[in-house]
Amino acid sequence: MASVLITGGQGFIGTNLANELRERGHETWRSDILHSADSQFIRCDVCSYRQLERIFREHKFDFVYHAAAEYGRWNGEAHYENLWRTNAVGTKNILNAQKEFGFRMIFFGSAEVYGDYDGVMTEDVMNKIPIKQMNDYALTKWVNELQILNSAEMDATETVRVRLFNVYGPHEHYSPYRGVVPVFVYRALHGLPYTVHKGHKRTFEFVEDICRSFANIIDNFHSGEVYNLGSEKQYTIEELSELVMKHTGGNLSGVTYKDEEPFTTRFKIADSSKAKTQIGHNVTVPLHEGIKRTVDWFKQEYRVGG
Amino acid sequence: MASVLITGGQGFIGTNLANELRERGHETWRSDILHSADSQFIRCDVCSYRQLERIFREHKFDFVYHAAAEYGRWNGEAHYENLWRTNAVGTKNILNAQKEFGFRMIFFGSAEVYGDYDGVMTEDVMNKIPIKQMNDYALTKWVNELQILNSAEMDATETVRVRLFNVYGPHEHYSPYRGVVPVFVYRALHGLPYTVHKGHKRTFEFVEDICRSFANIIDNFHSGEVYNLGSEKQYTIEELSELVMKHTGGNLSGVTYKDEEPFTTRFKIADSSKAKTQIGHNVTVPLHEGIKRTVDWFKQEYRVGG
Repeated sequence: MASVLITGGQGFIGTNLANELRERGHETWRSDILHSADSQFIRCDVCSYRQLERIFREHKFDFVYHAAAEYGRWNGEAHYENLWRTNAVGTKNILNAQKEFGFRMIFFGSAEVYGDYDGVMTEDVMNKIPIKQMNDYALTKWVNELQILNSAEMDATETVRVRLFNVYGPHEHYSPYRGVVPVFVYRALHGLPYTVHKGHKRTFEFVEDICRSFANIIDNFHSGEVYNLGSEKQYTIEELSELVMKHTGGNLSGVTYKDEEPFTTRFKIADSSKAKTQIGHNVTVPLHEGIKRTVDWFKQEYRVGG
Repeated sequence: MASVLITGGQGFIGTNLANELRERGHETWRSDILHSADSQFIRCDVCSYRQLERIFREHKFDFVYHAAAEYGRWNGEAHYENLWRTNAVGTKNILNAQKEFGFRMIFFGSAEVYGDYDGVMTEDVMNKIPIKQMNDYALTKWVNELQILNSAEMDATETVRVRLFNVYGPHEHYSPYRGVVPVFVYRALHGLPYTVHKGHKRTFEFVEDICRSFANIIDNFHSGEVYNLGSEKQYTIEELSELVMKHTGGNLSGVTYKDEEPFTTRFKIADSSKAKTQIGHNVTVPLHEGIKRTVDWFKQEYRVGG
């Protein structure tokens, strides 16, 4: 069994991952910027190296899942001061701590690093084709990957990078800057209108599937490796919206249909075969079931929709 | 005549550029993080959008030379919190101000964006070949270029980017994090030892030549354009050191010779032909003369070496 820390451990994926790791018997601690009732929790803002150092002086960890980050494209544009501080400085702090304390890191990256590339996304496509990231959030995630690669070369730190696509599911709280699933589900349950952009196709990955893959990395850790954790089946945003309306009992009259959203690719096609082979990545929960379970969680969490 | 602001205007290139622009009759204001006796000066930390906004509410500028930045590879590694805040957030603030107030920007970039690429550096090489920046300073400079390109596309802001190589000359104050010329000159004048890495070749550009090219951009502004401001003649670091010793009267016994520095390219070969054609870029001061003038400035500024 391993000793593990999850930064951003009270966030969406962090919460689900802590559940998965604890079920497997790993000693799992979480850190985040606010306080928590969790007995295995240490408050820490990753932007403060002093607070990070305190953790690693008091606890020995084999693995750190570095999930603490400002998330999302429009969130990053609206709150870019926080974005650059948490993502660029925060990750640099983790790398510095890694150099000093010697743990292995699993980094939470994003498919946003594929930027304007619209072909099949294999992990090594950026070694072959120049790619431009199209917003500051995407830039921070690519910066983080290069910080990790440079640190591995200069300081022999050991890290596995993961690139996430559209992870959704329980424990993702609503804000207008969140992904399309929680935005549609929350707004439908509250009778609020939302907008569907036509012409885009995306894959959606249920968070428990993703957390199994994350947890598997501990058992087969290859420093320097990078994995797409995507899935195959593509859905239009219209199809997603219809599923949400079916399970929330919401009314499609609140939906505005618009043309393609500018400055984002129409399709994102991920190749996750490496993750399947090496860490047993497997998306088992189909979208209709995942949406149903997500809606159930939202109903309970926000005490809405019976 | 144009109305111009230089951010980081009290720094090395900013000071020289203000002299050049004022000689040409442009109304030239400077901003920087500390106070100044200059009557055309507004104190402003570019990390604070409020302070920037204040400038643009009170003054109308046709052009902003955005030189305010944390500079240098090892400075960036030692002070990465400042690096990301000033370079990434500061430039994003300028772009936001640009969107709101509509000035044209000239951005101070760096040849560090060419990262691990060791061929002839033409400006468009990163559109053809994937390049990895090798340190956080280089990353901030590439991030800035992409922020600028994304802003041009989304908000129609107008910017020209410039990539600098090894600019040296008067008004560059010594710190251990500065470039090789001021480090060698200052240390030789003060009888302090320094290290020469063998096997590297670099070009060196005298700051007054560079500032003429910068000033010319106003007269032939092509939004979206990017220019290398390099030069042809390559020197080894040993050759540079010998020139410095000749002009400072220093003693070569204080010089330690070491093998190649790791994590940096051996040669940097710039193609600056586009800048020559479009903005009359012309390096006229040969290195031996430039070093002599730099040594004279250091002697006067630091009251040393007679």
